[in-house]
Amino acid sequence: MTTKQPPTRREFLQMSAAASAALALTSCGGAVAAAPAPRAGTPIKSRGYAAFDASGVLKPWEFERRAVGDNDILIDIKYASICHSDIHQLEGDWGPQQYPQIPGHEMVGIVAAVGSKVTRFKVGDRAGVGCMVGSCLECERCTHGEEHYCERGETLFTYGYPDPRAPTGITQGGYANNIVVRDHFAVHIPETIPLEEAAPLLCAGITTYSPIMQANLEIGDKVGVAGIGGLGHLAVKLAASKGAEVYAFTTSPDKVKDILAFGAKEVIVVDDLQKLRAHKGRLDYLINTIPVQYDVAAYASVVKPHGFYTQVGMAEAFSLNVSTIGLSLSRVNFNVALIGGIPETQEVMHYCADASVRPTTQLIQASEISDAWVKVKNKQARYRYVIDAATF
Amino acid sequence: MTTKQPPTRREFLQMSAAASAALALTSCGGAVAAAPAPRAGTPIKSRGYAAFDASGVLKPWEFERRAVGDNDILIDIKYASICHSDIHQLEGDWGPQQYPQIPGHEMVGIVAAVGSKVTRFKVGDRAGVGCMVGSCLECERCTHGEEHYCERGETLFTYGYPDPRAPTGITQGGYANNIVVRDHFAVHIPETIPLEEAAPLLCAGITTYSPIMQANLEIGDKVGVAGIGGLGHLAVKLAASKGAEVYAFTTSPDKVKDILAFGAKEVIVVDDLQKLRAHKGRLDYLINTIPVQYDVAAYASVVKPHGFYTQVGMAEAFSLNVSTIGLSLSRVNFNVALIGGIPETQEVMHYCADASVRPTTQLIQASEISDAWVKVKNKQARYRYVIDAATF
Repeated sequence: MTTKQPPTRREFLQMSAAASAALALTSCGGAVAAAPAPRAGTPIKSRGYAAFDASGVLKPWEFERRAVGDNDILIDIKYASICHSDIHQLEGDWGPQQYPQIPGHEMVGIVAAVGSKVTRFKVGDRAGVGCMVGSCLECERCTHGEEHYCERGETLFTYGYPDPRAPTGITQGGYANNIVVRDHFAVHIPETIPLEEAAPLLCAGITTYSPIMQANLEIGDKVGVAGIGGLGHLAVKLAASKGAEVYAFTTSPDKVKDILAFGAKEVIVVDDLQKLRAHKGRLDYLINTIPVQYDVAAYASVVKPHGFYTQVGMAEAFSLNVSTIGLSLSRVNFNVALIGGIPETQEVMHYCADASVRPTTQLIQASEISDAWVKVKNKQARYRYVIDAATF
Repeated sequence: MTTKQPPTRREFLQMSAAASAALALTSCGGAVAAAPAPRAGTPIKSRGYAAFDASGVLKPWEFERRAVGDNDILIDIKYASICHSDIHQLEGDWGPQQYPQIPGHEMVGIVAAVGSKVTRFKVGDRAGVGCMVGSCLECERCTHGEEHYCERGETLFTYGYPDPRAPTGITQGGYANNIVVRDHFAVHIPETIPLEEAAPLLCAGITTYSPIMQANLEIGDKVGVAGIGGLGHLAVKLAASKGAEVYAFTTSPDKVKDILAFGAKEVIVVDDLQKLRAHKGRLDYLINTIPVQYDVAAYASVVKPHGFYTQVGMAEAFSLNVSTIGLSLSRVNFNVALIGGIPETQEVMHYCADASVRPTTQLIQASEISDAWVKVKNKQARYRYVIDAATF
């Protein structure tokens, strides 16, 4: 991909401070041009596309990241992809936001500097960052690979969350040309995955992979996937790769051909919830990615009695109104999954590399982000927009 | 109990028609006075306490039941108990109702007549009826003991549901002196359970028993019960009888002593949801009986990651607003249980007889029903009001 490109003039200037004792700069075998590390303690200049209000319009913004600490790495971002969650959060669907705010929790790039205590990465490594950039790393959950469930409540999400170390006071996300992140919260990107196809795995991938793997599917199990967007199309591919019979539920008739090519056995176009009746009690497991209010019980009806149903993706206000009488009709086990831990995020990268599971992406320029957001809301994405970070 | 009382004058008159070829009248070993069976095809006169509007005030009402059909039995009701659902439905919380309507889906009594094809019951048998009185009896679910999940949607609930055979056009419940019911939907009451203590098992018992048994508890598992009313107090007793360590969550400090006596290991008075924090991730399983809107995710937080959480009892509009972000924090499996099938309802009777599990009841007169409803809503019931049907 772009790993052999020399740093831009801007990047060069940014990196041109003298190397510091606190930062280890390692040759990366020629994969990238060796650049001087940023001065220790000096904030990192960054530029990206930020929201300045809840309008959904993003504009260029220059800002600073924290200096690269002993346990941090600096990643030159090459690609960042667009998740519906970016839109929900920045447009205020999940509560008021601090602006300017850079969204983005699916980013990949090349390590440009590492702190003195970092051993997991070296300069030149391919690395990615997903939905979280911090947690206590000491509690029972953090030490067992579930940093997103940090018992101390210190899970730090990638953008818009208070962070006293951040010059802007909040975490700033991946729609930018670089990021400084605690090494623990970055994952390695196998060489066999093109960087731009790796980006969506950092949220859409792990978010669907984690519950699908934990569903303990057996070959031939009937798995439903509802909502075939960024998350759903990966869920279809992942479930099919596990040998499941995949039934896809979409409201977009023009996606049918694609979805069959993704590995679905059957596609049900749900232009009317009555269409679900013919599939009552059919599925062993359902993963629903619909990120807006919808009729949970109607979809639950297609799951076998006592089966399992996972919601991923969060609707407005992080809540759903659920018909309890509807759920009672099959005693389906409804659970909600939120991303996955860092070890599992690393795992999905390896799994997708090995099983040749790739997201279907569309590459866009930074200037197209606002337009892409509208398309995501209008269900026009096919299936994940990936931003070329060179255009920030 | 009252089984040795002769029929009242009213009952005598009601039964005085000549026995019909369509009705088998069997001696019951002297347990009740042998009365002539009602004339075949003649509607059964009945009296009870009905709601005439959504005010929650019940008044005496005389009405007719359908004639005893070939597969029906006529039960002289001795006791009927009060469920919060009675109040929800009759006060319109679950949608508009037809009035007058007799509520009540926990009733027990003595079989007074049986149709010509009935073999499961004979006159004089102790019998009970719960939440449903009909279903197709032919579909996969009905023939596998899950009549409440009838695939044809023909589950007929005990009161307020359209029933062309009923002279009033709808099913009429158990706050009355008798009921005509398809034999399949009645269960036998073991001799070891006093009739008045058997009544609450027909809904509160089966509704908590079914999910608790299906939770596959092991000795020492930590089981939570939230909402310690009619259902919850039985859930505490049932879970304790299975060897679980029971943690009870109540908003009523004055119930603590009772609940410990029911077998709970610990009672948490939830006068503030913050009280739940100390118990985060503690339970293997939680059954929540709160029948109004509440914070599902707050209670889900006390369940271990990937644990199970069953809601029983239905809030207003049969729905709950659920925080998906909250549920995601532990990926708890939230399910909703609605009563149980007829075989399992029979099973709970035997189980409670064998394990000496009894509801804690308060006997009231029919004239006290409206007052009792207010007390149920005000959490003043201790713990199930049982109406003496002789007072209708």
